Amino acid sequence: MGSIVPSISAVAGYVPDYILTNQELEEMIETNDEWITTRTGIKERRILKGERQGTSVMAVKVLKQLLEKSNTDPKDLDAVIIATITPDYFFPTTANLVATEAGAVNAFSFDMAAACSGFIYALETGANYIRSGNYKKIAIIGADKMSSIVNYKDRNTCILFGDGAAGVMLEPNGEGLGIYDTILRSDAAGKELIYLKGGGSVSPPTHETIDEGLHNFYQDGKSVFKFAVTRMADVAAEIMDRNNLNGEDIAYLVPHQANKRIIDATARRMGVGEEKVMLNIQKYGNTTAATIPLCLRDYEDKLNKGDNLVLAAFGGGFTWGSMYLKWAY
Amino acid sequence: MGSIVPSISAVAGYVPDYILTNQELEEMIETNDEWITTRTGIKERRILKGERQGTSVMAVKVLKQLLEKSNTDPKDLDAVIIATITPDYFFPTTANLVATEAGAVNAFSFDMAAACSGFIYALETGANYIRSGNYKKIAIIGADKMSSIVNYKDRNTCILFGDGAAGVMLEPNGEGLGIYDTILRSDAAGKELIYLKGGGSVSPPTHETIDEGLHNFYQDGKSVFKFAVTRMADVAAEIMDRNNLNGEDIAYLVPHQANKRIIDATARRMGVGEEKVMLNIQKYGNTTAATIPLCLRDYEDKLNKGDNLVLAAFGGGFTWGSMYLKWAY
Repeated sequence: MGSIVPSISAVAGYVPDYILTNQELEEMIETNDEWITTRTGIKERRILKGERQGTSVMAVKVLKQLLEKSNTDPKDLDAVIIATITPDYFFPTTANLVATEAGAVNAFSFDMAAACSGFIYALETGANYIRSGNYKKIAIIGADKMSSIVNYKDRNTCILFGDGAAGVMLEPNGEGLGIYDTILRSDAAGKELIYLKGGGSVSPPTHETIDEGLHNFYQDGKSVFKFAVTRMADVAAEIMDRNNLNGEDIAYLVPHQANKRIIDATARRMGVGEEKVMLNIQKYGNTTAATIPLCLRDYEDKLNKGDNLVLAAFGGGFTWGSMYLKWAY
Repeated sequence: MGSIVPSISAVAGYVPDYILTNQELEEMIETNDEWITTRTGIKERRILKGERQGTSVMAVKVLKQLLEKSNTDPKDLDAVIIATITPDYFFPTTANLVATEAGAVNAFSFDMAAACSGFIYALETGANYIRSGNYKKIAIIGADKMSSIVNYKDRNTCILFGDGAAGVMLEPNGEGLGIYDTILRSDAAGKELIYLKGGGSVSPPTHETIDEGLHNFYQDGKSVFKFAVTRMADVAAEIMDRNNLNGEDIAYLVPHQANKRIIDATARRMGVGEEKVMLNIQKYGNTTAATIPLCLRDYEDKLNKGDNLVLAAFGGGFTWGSMYLKWAY
């Protein structure tokens, strides 16, 4: 690693107003609050309502907040990176629309896809731009409108997801506080276990792909759970080992919010108590690329300068990863 | 920039066997070879035929070639980054499928989207991973199956595009030869001029979006041409200026292959003669993220160690950019 330490200088998030509760889901499909809560930890999730409202609608609000909170003139922003699996369009990119809408006229922008691990992937990508020494301010946003690909007649998956966006401002840190270490992994062993079969170059949209349900999120929940429990815990433990950290050294685990039981297993493996685990799945469900920065947003007030955080995620593909950072403010 | 110089150590490409000629297009739509050739420079393009053949089919062949040409054990590859606007699926990502298929079991992987500038964006992204000092071998691939989004009844656009994939191996260079400088830009001023309206979170696929043609590539060719001519030439000239390069210093301009007239305008602005312009649009058309590495593949035998190259691209969004590098082998 070079001498430049990339650090988070601001965090922001946005979730839509509409709250889809377990009670409302009980009226839509055969399920019940107790079943959902014990299996997933989720009580409610947010949904972006309205015609032609894409992921960028949420991400723009996040970028504007980030610019304000970090006292950044939009013209001084170097780049906008958005992790998403539900971009507004294949092109123009969501990051492009968001950067221009927020007045970031000198920023370049691109979208990244790494499923539920998208935010950690994007954060490490932005961090490496900062480490190069050639870039000073980069906004990293995770944003997904999962309601655009969820089938609300499939009771196995529609209970899990919500819409949301959140992100951070990354910049070089003068005090050596910031991102210290990252582990990223991928393995297409999960390609038949979580997917959206239609809409890409393998199966472009046709009347048949719609009738066959190929544009709906699919997950073999039980199989994915088994992989997630071990792999997310593995990379969290690995990053602690190689940085000589034990449970007491960690201020917070910041886990991807897919399922409370996966989060609990990761925390146990790390030796951190549940009071040190950021958790908001009960309010938002799984917002895919937005979960980790939404946690940082919700817990920002409890964080202290110098706190050791471990981020961990696991998702479709599979992709997974962990990150060790020192909170910088 | 740090002391580590990321450089291209191998280049590879793949285009499908099927050749769609101007003559065949004459039988499909009202057009003719002379009209296409004078306006675009394109004589033929390649099409990936067959059921359920996505972009990854081409990208896998490129990655396997890159591993072989750079004498890299697949297990030693750190990452696979694929620039594409026609991924196999929204998830799993194309890079994830490709990395696993090629045996790159320790590589992480993600897709990037920046339209026709995707390859330069991905190359700078990979370069910054290398500059961090934490990564040693990264494959950067541009791959698009444009035939999956082109409407072969629209004579304005179907003549322009072809399918293809190509890429490079990036690694630190011990002799200081490699990527020296990069300019990336974006501006959503083009959001109504080039787009794929349907398929994302703004307009998920429905029977109506299909009937309305929202899943077909759209371009206002004349307007895009005007932006492209000035902006691609601007960033090419800018990167020469700030590196004190003149036309004689440049061994080759490596331009995105969208239209021969845009390429000619860029070369004139840079003061480089047409013998120094990589050109293969006549054979492949616009393969989006694959054009620049396909040029490097086709001209590899003519390149000498130490040659100064300027890469330049412009595309949907808009996104655009340029890169100055010294060829390393």
